Amino acid sequence: MITLTTDFGLADGYVGVMKGVLLSIAPTAQLVDLTHELPAQDVRRAAFVLCAAAPFFPPGTVHLAVVDPGVGTSRRALALRAAGALWVGPDNGLFSYVLAESDAWEAVELSKPAYRLTPMSNTFHGRDLFAPAAAHLAMGVPLAAFGPPVVDPVLLPLPGLAVEASGLEGEVLHADRFGNLVTSIGRLSWEGEALRLRPAFRRGAADCSFCAASACVEVAGQKLHGIHRTYSAVASGKALALVGSSGFLEIAVRQGSAEQSLSARPGERVWVGV
Amino acid sequence: MITLTTDFGLADGYVGVMKGVLLSIAPTAQLVDLTHELPAQDVRRAAFVLCAAAPFFPPGTVHLAVVDPGVGTSRRALALRAAGALWVGPDNGLFSYVLAESDAWEAVELSKPAYRLTPMSNTFHGRDLFAPAAAHLAMGVPLAAFGPPVVDPVLLPLPGLAVEASGLEGEVLHADRFGNLVTSIGRLSWEGEALRLRPAFRRGAADCSFCAASACVEVAGQKLHGIHRTYSAVASGKALALVGSSGFLEIAVRQGSAEQSLSARPGERVWVGV
Amino acid sequence: MITLTTDFGLADGYVGVMKGVLLSIAPTAQLVDLTHELPAQDVRRAAFVLCAAAPFFPPGTVHLAVVDPGVGTSRRALALRAAGALWVGPDNGLFSYVLAESDAWEAVELSKPAYRLTPMSNTFHGRDLFAPAAAHLAMGVPLAAFGPPVVDPVLLPLPGLAVEASGLEGEVLHADRFGNLVTSIGRLSWEGEALRLRPAFRRGAADCSFCAASACVEVAGQKLHGIHRTYSAVASGKALALVGSSGFLEIAVRQGSAEQSLSARPGERVWVGV
Repeated sequence: MITLTTDFGLADGYVGVMKGVLLSIAPTAQLVDLTHELPAQDVRRAAFVLCAAAPFFPPGTVHLAVVDPGVGTSRRALALRAAGALWVGPDNGLFSYVLAESDAWEAVELSKPAYRLTPMSNTFHGRDLFAPAAAHLAMGVPLAAFGPPVVDPVLLPLPGLAVEASGLEGEVLHADRFGNLVTSIGRLSWEGEALRLRPAFRRGAADCSFCAASACVEVAGQKLHGIHRTYSAVASGKALALVGSSGFLEIAVRQGSAEQSLSARPGERVWVGV
Repeated sequence: MITLTTDFGLADGYVGVMKGVLLSIAPTAQLVDLTHELPAQDVRRAAFVLCAAAPFFPPGTVHLAVVDPGVGTSRRALALRAAGALWVGPDNGLFSYVLAESDAWEAVELSKPAYRLTPMSNTFHGRDLFAPAAAHLAMGVPLAAFGPPVVDPVLLPLPGLAVEASGLEGEVLHADRFGNLVTSIGRLSWEGEALRLRPAFRRGAADCSFCAASACVEVAGQKLHGIHRTYSAVASGKALALVGSSGFLEIAVRQGSAEQSLSARPGERVWVGV
Repeated sequence: MITLTTDFGLADGYVGVMKGVLLSIAPTAQLVDLTHELPAQDVRRAAFVLCAAAPFFPPGTVHLAVVDPGVGTSRRALALRAAGALWVGPDNGLFSYVLAESDAWEAVELSKPAYRLTPMSNTFHGRDLFAPAAAHLAMGVPLAAFGPPVVDPVLLPLPGLAVEASGLEGEVLHADRFGNLVTSIGRLSWEGEALRLRPAFRRGAADCSFCAASACVEVAGQKLHGIHRTYSAVASGKALALVGSSGFLEIAVRQGSAEQSLSARPGERVWVGV
């Protein structure tokens, strides 16, 4: 299985062409689109989507990701093994969150011409470099065959998250299609009526626990009482804090859009008093 | 084969994650997207898409539909057998139109934890509850294994359609991507130059027939003469009534948008004098 | 393998229905979407997407294309063999660019009722006529079985391209998702530091070569110096001319949108002084 994640959109046929290349090399591969509608060149958003989606795919899945503002520069091209899966894409931080949650990983630079299309363009490495590598990986070519080891992949700064005695400080990461504001406060999991926080993307960081019902969430000048399990904990049109499906604190408006109601932008500070 | 119908959009990777779950359980399933661009929480529109599309899939296809404003409430989760296919989704009326055209059906509540992901979130049942059920159904698990029978699934009110001596009264259901206004007057089929009306979604209702050429259609203050077979029956830019590809009366503007030209909204009254 | 290219959008389920028909006839076919977000009824844009994408698919791929403003008129329906692939769609110029680059081709009219759905609508030939034909082709039905030969398929006028002693004159074809302006000047290929122009879509036309570094590109009142290999040849926010991934001259703005910065529309004249 090969997943695809890009910012190419679906209008121009670029994704279709990548699939043609994938299936020319790996004719029986099962292709799954994660998304092609990422904001153009938004590496951070892509890193989050990859990290949130990967646990739901079978072990050994190849995740091909091309959000590549540096195409044609000297930025490296990578293949990695991490978190039970294989990853292919430019070395610009796309895999930061996956790596930050992985205990062990290995990476190589995609330098062998045998696993590229010829001639290779300088503007569409998704087609000429990354898709062939992903297809050959899916066909069983070992990681080491693609090029020399890489020990220092580019890593994005991790999203803000601080655990203090009086509470947790984080930030808004992005809004999803429903206008739900996904924050950096996670991964949260329920333990009865309490929430356990396992700091995302920070291996070895200490966990903490707190009472969901008495937590007080502040964001964009609003105070929200309690952290809830479902949208239906409040009336239609009201804002609430809840644990999103990937374990991150989300700010939502029931049957509405928190993005519009609260006008909170990515980077906006979020405080959870506990 | 498993089809997917949601209002999740394609930007966030939610659909990709559902496919990861589906293929983890049913690795050889063939997945087909019906649409993921339904207006958010528009159960009625989803019900129409499902009903219009299903006849064109092989018998035994599993149709997975998640438009779920009540996720996390006590609304039931369903699997059904109807119209030669299997159906999975929330119990909120999504399958109303399919059931209204089915002579016989059976339904169960998805209550068995064995066919869910663990832990199950309260905000993304598409991933944790409905996708696993659809995949297990596709793998041959019998309907009765998922939970107890349901005899009273939620049913939406059927769209307005009245057959009178002087004509037919219906309503605009929605506009499609081309701006064609799909109405509740159907299903229509040609019998030479006459049209036969089999009242949609109403088993046992009486059919009627009328002359297409002499019919007069009134909508949004416009009168249109005749019901046509093709867009090319009128000049470019002109409005016409015709039988759409699913057998419903449509109002279109040739090489234009009836939605924009006529400014008719869903619910707008449509009259066909016969 | 069957690819799909339409202007149906993804909101209405029309594409999903076509896939249901394809897989009902050819259950093991691998389906790949090229794009369904073409501007409505933009046959020219569709012709370009098909021509640019096809070389990256395995020989024998069936390309199903439905951009069909004339559905329901007497326009013919075609299947073709050209460029190592099979093609199915309306006879309105969709395959013009593919045919103009093909040394040999054969075409037939889709006239045999056996390879259509019954009853066949007059408004959705993608479902009732073209999808069945594509699926039967993928299953090995020979081209000649579908109907009589066609020797005069509709051909679009080719995009403007003139080669003169002092330079090349072309036009803007369209902007892609990133705002890059794709022009008719191609196909270009690198020969060291020089560019070789093989006039696109014009079999037998003479090639020419010129120095990329000293070329001067004029478009929409702007002069750009040199033709580059990568976006990174200029600073962020600056415009440049480069060779796009399909070998056509493109005007881009690094990490920006040339479409917005230069306000050049399709048809705008482009001059390359050499």
